[in-house]
Amino acid sequence: MIRVAIIGASGYTGAESIRLILQHSRAELVYLTALPEECGPVGEVFGQFKGRCNLQIEPLDLDRLTGLADVALCCLPHKVSMGFVPRLLDAGLKVVDFSADYRLKDAKIYEKFYGVKHTDTANLARAVFGLPELFREQIKGAKLVANPGCFPTSALLGLSPLLKEGLIETDSIIVNAVTGVSGAGKNPSGRFHFPNMNENLFAYGIGTHRHMPEMEQIAGEIAGTDVQILFQPHAGPFDRGILSSIYCQPKRKVSSEQLSALYRKFYAEEPFVQICSDAPNVKDVAWTNYCHIFATSVKGRIVVFSAIDNLVKGASGQAVQNMNIVFGLEETLGLK
Amino acid sequence: MIRVAIIGASGYTGAESIRLILQHSRAELVYLTALPEECGPVGEVFGQFKGRCNLQIEPLDLDRLTGLADVALCCLPHKVSMGFVPRLLDAGLKVVDFSADYRLKDAKIYEKFYGVKHTDTANLARAVFGLPELFREQIKGAKLVANPGCFPTSALLGLSPLLKEGLIETDSIIVNAVTGVSGAGKNPSGRFHFPNMNENLFAYGIGTHRHMPEMEQIAGEIAGTDVQILFQPHAGPFDRGILSSIYCQPKRKVSSEQLSALYRKFYAEEPFVQICSDAPNVKDVAWTNYCHIFATSVKGRIVVFSAIDNLVKGASGQAVQNMNIVFGLEETLGLK
Amino acid sequence: MIRVAIIGASGYTGAESIRLILQHSRAELVYLTALPEECGPVGEVFGQFKGRCNLQIEPLDLDRLTGLADVALCCLPHKVSMGFVPRLLDAGLKVVDFSADYRLKDAKIYEKFYGVKHTDTANLARAVFGLPELFREQIKGAKLVANPGCFPTSALLGLSPLLKEGLIETDSIIVNAVTGVSGAGKNPSGRFHFPNMNENLFAYGIGTHRHMPEMEQIAGEIAGTDVQILFQPHAGPFDRGILSSIYCQPKRKVSSEQLSALYRKFYAEEPFVQICSDAPNVKDVAWTNYCHIFATSVKGRIVVFSAIDNLVKGASGQAVQNMNIVFGLEETLGLK
Amino acid sequence: MIRVAIIGASGYTGAESIRLILQHSRAELVYLTALPEECGPVGEVFGQFKGRCNLQIEPLDLDRLTGLADVALCCLPHKVSMGFVPRLLDAGLKVVDFSADYRLKDAKIYEKFYGVKHTDTANLARAVFGLPELFREQIKGAKLVANPGCFPTSALLGLSPLLKEGLIETDSIIVNAVTGVSGAGKNPSGRFHFPNMNENLFAYGIGTHRHMPEMEQIAGEIAGTDVQILFQPHAGPFDRGILSSIYCQPKRKVSSEQLSALYRKFYAEEPFVQICSDAPNVKDVAWTNYCHIFATSVKGRIVVFSAIDNLVKGASGQAVQNMNIVFGLEETLGLK
Repeated sequence: MIRVAIIGASGYTGAESIRLILQHSRAELVYLTALPEECGPVGEVFGQFKGRCNLQIEPLDLDRLTGLADVALCCLPHKVSMGFVPRLLDAGLKVVDFSADYRLKDAKIYEKFYGVKHTDTANLARAVFGLPELFREQIKGAKLVANPGCFPTSALLGLSPLLKEGLIETDSIIVNAVTGVSGAGKNPSGRFHFPNMNENLFAYGIGTHRHMPEMEQIAGEIAGTDVQILFQPHAGPFDRGILSSIYCQPKRKVSSEQLSALYRKFYAEEPFVQICSDAPNVKDVAWTNYCHIFATSVKGRIVVFSAIDNLVKGASGQAVQNMNIVFGLEETLGLK
Repeated sequence: MIRVAIIGASGYTGAESIRLILQHSRAELVYLTALPEECGPVGEVFGQFKGRCNLQIEPLDLDRLTGLADVALCCLPHKVSMGFVPRLLDAGLKVVDFSADYRLKDAKIYEKFYGVKHTDTANLARAVFGLPELFREQIKGAKLVANPGCFPTSALLGLSPLLKEGLIETDSIIVNAVTGVSGAGKNPSGRFHFPNMNENLFAYGIGTHRHMPEMEQIAGEIAGTDVQILFQPHAGPFDRGILSSIYCQPKRKVSSEQLSALYRKFYAEEPFVQICSDAPNVKDVAWTNYCHIFATSVKGRIVVFSAIDNLVKGASGQAVQNMNIVFGLEETLGLK
Repeated sequence: MIRVAIIGASGYTGAESIRLILQHSRAELVYLTALPEECGPVGEVFGQFKGRCNLQIEPLDLDRLTGLADVALCCLPHKVSMGFVPRLLDAGLKVVDFSADYRLKDAKIYEKFYGVKHTDTANLARAVFGLPELFREQIKGAKLVANPGCFPTSALLGLSPLLKEGLIETDSIIVNAVTGVSGAGKNPSGRFHFPNMNENLFAYGIGTHRHMPEMEQIAGEIAGTDVQILFQPHAGPFDRGILSSIYCQPKRKVSSEQLSALYRKFYAEEPFVQICSDAPNVKDVAWTNYCHIFATSVKGRIVVFSAIDNLVKGASGQAVQNMNIVFGLEETLGLK
Repeated sequence: MIRVAIIGASGYTGAESIRLILQHSRAELVYLTALPEECGPVGEVFGQFKGRCNLQIEPLDLDRLTGLADVALCCLPHKVSMGFVPRLLDAGLKVVDFSADYRLKDAKIYEKFYGVKHTDTANLARAVFGLPELFREQIKGAKLVANPGCFPTSALLGLSPLLKEGLIETDSIIVNAVTGVSGAGKNPSGRFHFPNMNENLFAYGIGTHRHMPEMEQIAGEIAGTDVQILFQPHAGPFDRGILSSIYCQPKRKVSSEQLSALYRKFYAEEPFVQICSDAPNVKDVAWTNYCHIFATSVKGRIVVFSAIDNLVKGASGQAVQNMNIVFGLEETLGLK
């Protein structure tokens, strides 16, 4: 059994990680941590776990970690995470980090979008971007996996076949995405107060969303050239899921049939990516680690729809998938 | 034109009052007040009023009120309201007060449920309970109307024909109610954070909800005897509406047909109470000042369903109805 | 009083038209029609109107119309409408038609997208496109107004300032829109069955939606040149509203400030179009006839967000606005 | 591995059964059947299973069943099921039947509520009521388990400790329940059309719901005396879950503390029943096989809240739990 510590277990991705590890036949929870004011029996912090898990969520004590756990799922916020990851690694744990702190290879871009100096560039250099469909081989030997953001996961899975094939102009990609509200985290705010958010839909992070440089960096790696993405997120009145509607300019004429064939071939061996023959439903991927994609040609453009659950394939499920790869387990374990 | 001031305009009932007065052909908004930190152009405080109302929401200046307005819709919270109402009355305004401060005739019960001493018992004695279907005559001459709570409105309209007829045992009434989340007000909290409240339903205020004594007092007045009500509220994942499902023990056998006839006769002249021939839908009364009621006999019990919009008939709409009565206008003005 | 007949009153736009006319101080309902199987007292066909309207919804009897009504709001479906509109006009009524039958000036395009021959090209030639913000002068004298589609209303209000100024490339406009489910009409189907649609979001009508040629025709008129629009609708889990997120390629550099100034000037006199300084909320325009727009510059592109209520500004509200114009009434009557 | 056939796999409880068996480490799907018009690859019938299950849903061929499967989860509708269950048993399978056909021991009551003659009274006599918390021993050896209805599961788990202790009057129990819409099944109808059901709440089945006699029969067995239950279901705007709010008249005074102690003791060994110290949330039990209960004393009454997921503990999860018991597996397998 792989012994799992969840650092920052009191948020939504923490809860989702607990849920998934509870269902995992080869991994077990051994340690759950949070800020002191958010600690307590896990069944009280999250009513959904009443009777399902008897652990306490405790304040983090790094000294206890060595020898206790094999891997840390680190669900700490951006900027906070890089203060703890080095110590988790020093304690001998493998780390799957959910924050953005190890995703942007260029510390300058990190500093621009996150407004702080990067304090752990050594591990940043070693971290692997945890999108298994694209970087499985590097993940296998990794000590530190930077778990991708939810929007980048959805967008990059939708764009990769086109970028790899060099099929599209890389300076004019538009990613219009709508996320469920769990993506906003568990802290109450006026915007996400039920009577404000219910029956609502709005754009946010216009021109400034932090997932934009992450998408562009990985898209650039895949394409082998600079990629410009206009990424526009929206929030919609549902709990789980992201639908990215992606608009691209093809370099040459390509039919819907060719696109379908390309995508099916590209993802033929991937357990968690399914190519649809019509527009995907967010609800079909909710509560699963699957990504449903449909690519087609419309009026000379390529339009791609890519749907995931932001908390599963966009966060905790992908982390478990990465953990499975790192430890040489069957990749789908606990995620079927 | 009746000149309307809304005191405490920055909350949900304030907004709903603004919306209704904007549609009113014989009333106009002249003054909107709120706490300093919640002030600003009304179209910025509430995006829904952009271009529809050019007033500012301002900190309350009592000196300005005299001569400026004819009536105050006072949307201040419980306990706060009784500090302002006397001054609004002194300034020569009629007042429709939304708080509980003038609803409970027995200051001792007020003090028990609200935990503070009542500081305006003089006006408490003069206040009229603003349920027009039961107290229209008293409202006509009133200077101070205590606008009923949302749950009591729904429950009392459902119960009144039975109580007036002496048809039911008064020691064993059960009111099981579900409210939409706008009833919880605009302040964000974990409980009503969208990802927690969406797809959820729960009971609250078990045995302690403050609307219980209010129901019992008015029910007692109607019945002419002491009435005991077990009132149990729940919150459900929708914006607007209350459905009260009411269970009573009849004193003598009564058929569904008799109940239907009783209710239709009781409310025959009431514009805003409609007797249904099947279970009412919360959605049919949402955004309206109507109450839909269905009463029937089930296994020897009487079961009554009563649906209103908590923000309209349960608050701002009823206040406008009361205002219309106080000023001798057609009662349905602005509420059709 | 303008006497209003609603032809096809049993659907959602029929109900919304009834609701709005009930609130209108200078118009009254005189005749409501539907297919025989959907007839009955209006308060029974739509529970929301119980006690608010005592008319019957009846099968259409054209002979009764002459002299009975001044205007018909014709809410019949596409293809059906053109069989009735000529007779309504012959009966001496002004007509605001909700269907697509009189929107597409080129009958060939109509026939391509709707799959039937146009049977009333004479009136098609006379019909005016009922988007008051752009065609107010023509509407004034019109006998037949083709009320615009919901998506075109939202998109065209968002695009017009750019098109009129010649600011953008007209061959690469992308309109990504999300509509609430009332847009799908009242007929039950698997797709919109609550447990399928709730917590869901999906694209539909990919490359084939019938509102695309309508947008392109009017956009072309405004721009004075051929316009190509890639329009992609989605359905989201809410009742009312459309958010169009529009992506354009500017011909020359333009700042967010310049865009803001352009939009504010363009719509300065328009009561129902409000320019926002941040992304609009669908919820702010729900249940209103308002359109909220925000235009900004992002990474060299122009991005415009335009929000309306699909049933009000996208259908019945706009029809009332058109009716007000046709009859020389104040344009905002009944819509405040 | 236990080989599982799902008969009637194309509905919501069929889909939920597929989902749960896919996660089960000791059971596997071998045969999925439905009406011919609902057949096809499971990943096409239910988009959620794309890539997760490669079986076909096929028309039932009873001849193929013998030797192919060990157990049938029979998800056929009421009245249909009793035509197939005898043949499934004859084919040597254990059967967990989801319909009401084997729940009501008294065929006369069945015939009254379901309007047809019972055609398989032989097996009816042998069937065991599959509520493991009350009938675990009988389930162990059973060949045919009648899986309880969703409302009875919720109500009976909430009532059993009181009935077993003889604590309450058995002629005046009120069960007020609200269910999510998945309980209404997958067939579209006007009532559950998204724009009608969203933001709505209503009572139904007033005095006539078929789960009422089922509750009364089992409650009577537990109490050892005749039990009268006034059961009133409602539908609310969410997918999954039932909250039963239960009102009882105690025979003698009992405190909230005593109730809490009684419930904790009664369910101490039960993995799937959790006693809460406050009102349970439907959302905490959604997607799980758990039942959360809170019992308290209010104004001399006992009030019990009991929450389950109607598709899991109220249907497919409980069926898997029963299957585990029948086959001597750990009861929680596949349900953690």
